[in-house]
Amino acid sequence: MSKTFTAVNPATGQAVGEPIAENNFEEVSAAIAAANKVKKEFAATTPTQRAALLNAIADSIESQKEKLADISNQESALPIARVTGEVMRTVIQIRAFADLVKTGGHLLPIIDLADPNFLPIARPDLRKSQQPLGVVSIFAASNFPLAFSVAGGDSASALAAGCPVVVKAHPSHPNTCEMVYQAVTKAITQQGLPKEIFTLVQGVNPEITHWLAKAPEVTAIGFTGSEMVGRLLVKLAQERETPIPVYAEMGSLNPVFFTPAVLNQRPEELAKAAIDSALLGSGQFCTKPGIIVVSDDSAGDKFIANVQTYLADQKVGPLLNKGIVTRFVDAITSISKAKSIRVLTGVANPDGFGVTPSIFVVDWKDAKNHAELLEEHFGPTSVIIRARYDQYLEIAETMGGQLASSVHAAASDDVKELVAALTQKAGRLIWNGFPTSVSVTAAQNHGGQWPASSSHTTSVGLDAIFRFVRPVVYQNFPDDQLPAELQNDNPYKIERVVNGVRQIKAIN
Amino acid sequence: MSKTFTAVNPATGQAVGEPIAENNFEEVSAAIAAANKVKKEFAATTPTQRAALLNAIADSIESQKEKLADISNQESALPIARVTGEVMRTVIQIRAFADLVKTGGHLLPIIDLADPNFLPIARPDLRKSQQPLGVVSIFAASNFPLAFSVAGGDSASALAAGCPVVVKAHPSHPNTCEMVYQAVTKAITQQGLPKEIFTLVQGVNPEITHWLAKAPEVTAIGFTGSEMVGRLLVKLAQERETPIPVYAEMGSLNPVFFTPAVLNQRPEELAKAAIDSALLGSGQFCTKPGIIVVSDDSAGDKFIANVQTYLADQKVGPLLNKGIVTRFVDAITSISKAKSIRVLTGVANPDGFGVTPSIFVVDWKDAKNHAELLEEHFGPTSVIIRARYDQYLEIAETMGGQLASSVHAAASDDVKELVAALTQKAGRLIWNGFPTSVSVTAAQNHGGQWPASSSHTTSVGLDAIFRFVRPVVYQNFPDDQLPAELQNDNPYKIERVVNGVRQIKAIN
Repeated sequence: MSKTFTAVNPATGQAVGEPIAENNFEEVSAAIAAANKVKKEFAATTPTQRAALLNAIADSIESQKEKLADISNQESALPIARVTGEVMRTVIQIRAFADLVKTGGHLLPIIDLADPNFLPIARPDLRKSQQPLGVVSIFAASNFPLAFSVAGGDSASALAAGCPVVVKAHPSHPNTCEMVYQAVTKAITQQGLPKEIFTLVQGVNPEITHWLAKAPEVTAIGFTGSEMVGRLLVKLAQERETPIPVYAEMGSLNPVFFTPAVLNQRPEELAKAAIDSALLGSGQFCTKPGIIVVSDDSAGDKFIANVQTYLADQKVGPLLNKGIVTRFVDAITSISKAKSIRVLTGVANPDGFGVTPSIFVVDWKDAKNHAELLEEHFGPTSVIIRARYDQYLEIAETMGGQLASSVHAAASDDVKELVAALTQKAGRLIWNGFPTSVSVTAAQNHGGQWPASSSHTTSVGLDAIFRFVRPVVYQNFPDDQLPAELQNDNPYKIERVVNGVRQIKAIN
Repeated sequence: MSKTFTAVNPATGQAVGEPIAENNFEEVSAAIAAANKVKKEFAATTPTQRAALLNAIADSIESQKEKLADISNQESALPIARVTGEVMRTVIQIRAFADLVKTGGHLLPIIDLADPNFLPIARPDLRKSQQPLGVVSIFAASNFPLAFSVAGGDSASALAAGCPVVVKAHPSHPNTCEMVYQAVTKAITQQGLPKEIFTLVQGVNPEITHWLAKAPEVTAIGFTGSEMVGRLLVKLAQERETPIPVYAEMGSLNPVFFTPAVLNQRPEELAKAAIDSALLGSGQFCTKPGIIVVSDDSAGDKFIANVQTYLADQKVGPLLNKGIVTRFVDAITSISKAKSIRVLTGVANPDGFGVTPSIFVVDWKDAKNHAELLEEHFGPTSVIIRARYDQYLEIAETMGGQLASSVHAAASDDVKELVAALTQKAGRLIWNGFPTSVSVTAAQNHGGQWPASSSHTTSVGLDAIFRFVRPVVYQNFPDDQLPAELQNDNPYKIERVVNGVRQIKAIN
């Protein structure tokens, strides 16, 4: 008999739904092998077919909007409005990939025609495009039960690339995962494609992660979660006989810098906005401002006083699961013991996995030797660092890689050096704003130097698709043996770069 | 007193030039630290300045063409015509990067303007471009004393990206390395840039490799060489506190498949061409056809008979260094012992590091269980595998990743399945041709699945530049705080994608 586990409502601590069967090694291996068997058929789908599939998946998920919002609200305790918005973000980002794929934007065809006069030697006919990698293992994130879970950004970009997906459900929202999986499978079958291109794996057994990383048929890993698990996946991937890329979006502090001048102008408004950003989603966003840097002067003190007043009335929803609560409480308790650190608190939430918002205030001289302060802590906490303005650059340079970082400056401020230093660390820089809220668009970049990300790629936005393809060039191939996107008459009618010129027209 | 080593002429075994001082840990670390200090200044150069630098480097190297050909001929024993051609390839590929950089082709600017009606939530102003990584460690290859050495493709693409370079000379051609380094440095100084953006490190101490991989300031590694050293670099890079990407171009067999029909048509011509490709550069190309697959029928036997006749008269130049000779002789001796393997030989070269061309003939049923046959062996050797035509697909699927693979087929042949299988393995597929000779152009791809390459990137051609940049997006930045390529008036006048439309015009 197979093992089972049951979802828990974070607001009440009570069970949600029926016990769920955990997949064993044989089942996980069979899912990967089955996905591998259909990879060529899936890779051969045209841009139109691929786009139709993505749109069908989006429609199928949208048709379950209320049910999905309801079950994910029960499993995550995130408000109905939030999870309803997340269903729509999920659907919209799948459709954005459909639009990209329809125009062949993922194929990047480059054609250099044969040139006997090319130097230093004659050039053959060379035609390059991007090919899907093969089976991809994806790990659902706890904090986005829809938009970065079963049919979230990683799965959408892998399917758009033409890669079969085996996705591991997050055990904090297994029923949401199952409902999304059913919606996706229904759409795949309706489109006449093999359902094996998409499989859900359930369980709390940590070995499942190893199986998904080690299977020889797996060609890449998409992951959003902790640095600890991200590092494990990178290690497992490198130890394989054939190493594979790991696209892990891991820990980030997303430091927010306030210049003295800007603090002087709007201390109350900025304090409220900073705390709103830090407590959004109960502080469980990967883009949470985990470090807030203010000047150690009266302007900074005014900001901190405003934080204290505002925070005192703030209460946040319960955390997503018991593990997050334990790690949050342990970290808060440990950090609070340091006598150089002040603790500001909000309103305790006594229900289920509820906790008390806790913001630390510390001088830079004390913070820089306290490693725990400069690590990511999931939940309603952040660290306000008091520093001389001329120390901001040192703070920026001390930080590891970041998903995002903000600079709040007045018109009179010269922050070019600070921005240049942050450019070396972060994947996204925000001016006079906060790092939470990530738009899904072509220009988006959600990734940053290690440990924010294990690669120089983005997991949000259209460029995420390029994680799951690789270039292949065809030399002197007869037209009818080439992939369609490289054939002379351009049957997909997509943009191609031919002898350096971007064009849609056929090659004569 | 520092240690020294001396170059050896492979044709004579005699010393070339004066003893060369080996760099110690302090010197290597100092070079990296100095490069790191000037990285911001170098990153801030405009496309015009960067292109001018690359063109000046090309001119400076070209002005030494005869001297460089002479010294590298002495150190490599490669013919004067070959090394002269290689000087020109080096110069031409640097100029190709200059042309790319001048048009901003490395910046890939994508701008999504703020949109209050964007779904699911309002979109801020998002502007993304590519930023240089920082200091890059590059390892010169033994077999391309110019085109993949000090100022070869890796260095050219890293400098084009705006990354300072610390390059390790290959101890087989240290004087060539020094001469190229002097030419590059002269150009850098003439352009008013700090010479610390480019440093040469010399030595035979294997620890140098570790120092260059472990230094905290190093942000990426470019390497062309053996799978053993490539794997070491990947391991060192992953063990760092901050892991970094390794772009290693390692071993490849580049299998060449001949259908029975094509063998029947031109057995003599194809046999000669295959052997010419296998013996080119004394079999020391990473694109050498290391596996040649023919049908186990009369057509295949005719091909093999022609190989035997042609090979009997072939003599090749000496190998590049003593290590390659030892590994070649050991491999040939070991493989020759198997009684299922036939050995065809050419003319012995008794001088210096000369060896005897040796081609193996083996049936697939014997080859597939003989691991040594399916590994890369540098030098004038290749393995002709006899197989039933219906076994070709199995052979293709058994192979690891490849830089390149060729299919020779007649008009009547259906090889779609074979090509599809090879697409999963190789970075370049050649129709009715041989894998040697790699054109440096936009459509080129020189890379393939592991172990041919440690990443899904190319080390030859313009796309090589993208290994040394990473995306950064700026959210709601004031125009004057943005990198120039993202400012409204498009000061570089380069192509940008604005709200999905490719354009050069300014944003109003």
